Amino acid sequence: MTDEKDNTNEEVIEVVSDVVVVGEAPHTPSNLTEDGDDNFDEKSGLIAQNIKPEENIIEDQYWESSVWKVVRQRSTWLIFLLFIQSFSSFILASFEKLLSKHVIITLFLTMLIGTGGNTGAQSTVLVVRGLATGVITKDKIKKVIWKEARIGLVLSLILCVIGAVRVLVHDVFKLVNGSSDQILPELFALTLSLFLIVWISVIIGTGLPLFLHFVLKWDPANAGPTVAVMMDIMGVFIICLVCATVLGT
Amino acid sequence: MTDEKDNTNEEVIEVVSDVVVVGEAPHTPSNLTEDGDDNFDEKSGLIAQNIKPEENIIEDQYWESSVWKVVRQRSTWLIFLLFIQSFSSFILASFEKLLSKHVIITLFLTMLIGTGGNTGAQSTVLVVRGLATGVITKDKIKKVIWKEARIGLVLSLILCVIGAVRVLVHDVFKLVNGSSDQILPELFALTLSLFLIVWISVIIGTGLPLFLHFVLKWDPANAGPTVAVMMDIMGVFIICLVCATVLGT
Repeated sequence: MTDEKDNTNEEVIEVVSDVVVVGEAPHTPSNLTEDGDDNFDEKSGLIAQNIKPEENIIEDQYWESSVWKVVRQRSTWLIFLLFIQSFSSFILASFEKLLSKHVIITLFLTMLIGTGGNTGAQSTVLVVRGLATGVITKDKIKKVIWKEARIGLVLSLILCVIGAVRVLVHDVFKLVNGSSDQILPELFALTLSLFLIVWISVIIGTGLPLFLHFVLKWDPANAGPTVAVMMDIMGVFIICLVCATVLGT
Repeated sequence: MTDEKDNTNEEVIEVVSDVVVVGEAPHTPSNLTEDGDDNFDEKSGLIAQNIKPEENIIEDQYWESSVWKVVRQRSTWLIFLLFIQSFSSFILASFEKLLSKHVIITLFLTMLIGTGGNTGAQSTVLVVRGLATGVITKDKIKKVIWKEARIGLVLSLILCVIGAVRVLVHDVFKLVNGSSDQILPELFALTLSLFLIVWISVIIGTGLPLFLHFVLKWDPANAGPTVAVMMDIMGVFIICLVCATVLGT
């Protein structure tokens, strides 16, 4: 953004602030215009997009708003996300015995879920940009999904091989310490989980912005945080389900 | 982005594609211009930003590139992130005994780390936009950090109370099933972890884009994925350290 800093074109500034904010504010521009009488977006705690920078309202708001006012606005969205994210705890809790028996699942939980998030985000970014530049049009939806599904298949094969090597590194240390119980079934379960997480992430990361744009007519850039939260919950679910099936509950 | 769809202003389209891509491509615009002879950004697997949309090169590239070519480009960045993310497994592995003794840590691992990610992302988005609109200038850095530190303190207090209630809900189910061992120390350890994770996330989420913009002169929007990966690793580290201290290894 550095090179756009001195650009005084209002339109560009508006677009920049509109795009930069999408990671946090799940609202269509029309929503924001509707509550134009309120300068703050209640749900995300971010300043509404319909304010012109030259009016200096944004600046006044940031510096004049008390810490409490800002907290009230920002916490709503964070509490909402915390609530959704807590569903992962319900899933994990119902597999408590499995997790206490196979601690290795916990050790690779963050890595597997994080990789799903990264892969999904990459697909979403590409589709959102494809829609913005007009590369992806309505008649090409099927072609895009089909291409991304094949790309996702190969990506998940590559990443699950690397993930398996990473788990093996851990296993070697474990073998040195003498405990070799169920190493192969655990390795297989984690690798299969990673494979499924990555592939499903690519498909959801591609499908969700297309669905938002063409079906719901929403801003597809909103797909970012939605994909992230969805992949967290789904990743936990896939890991628990695959490990329970392979290793037995 | 929907309402900008028909805008044919090249500058706007360029800005849109530039901003949308930042979540994945950790490059400054100058970097991208340097390797302008190669239409693909090797590291992120995304098409370089210096291509004009009207030249139809982007479109040709997406449809003409084979699945293998796209995979080669996209997998590099994903493998790099998988590698970084795997550090969390090293941290968790060195606290294996703690995790197998207190399964509740695993149950709330995703929720705690996810909340840190959301909070950090919110601060980053606000700072990146503040820099783009000129609200945050060099002479205001200290004021911004001081304000965000206070906001972060209150946010972390609010979120850790809600997190504690969520852990208590789990504990009630546990008590019904008869096992009440170490419920209070575990509750305290998880609440303290969430408090620290949220506060540190706000400070890093604020500080990193400011550091990138004013010290390294990089595009501050690149802070997004960096904050996400940093908070994942740091979140795991905070949880393990706090729980080991409170509950004993």
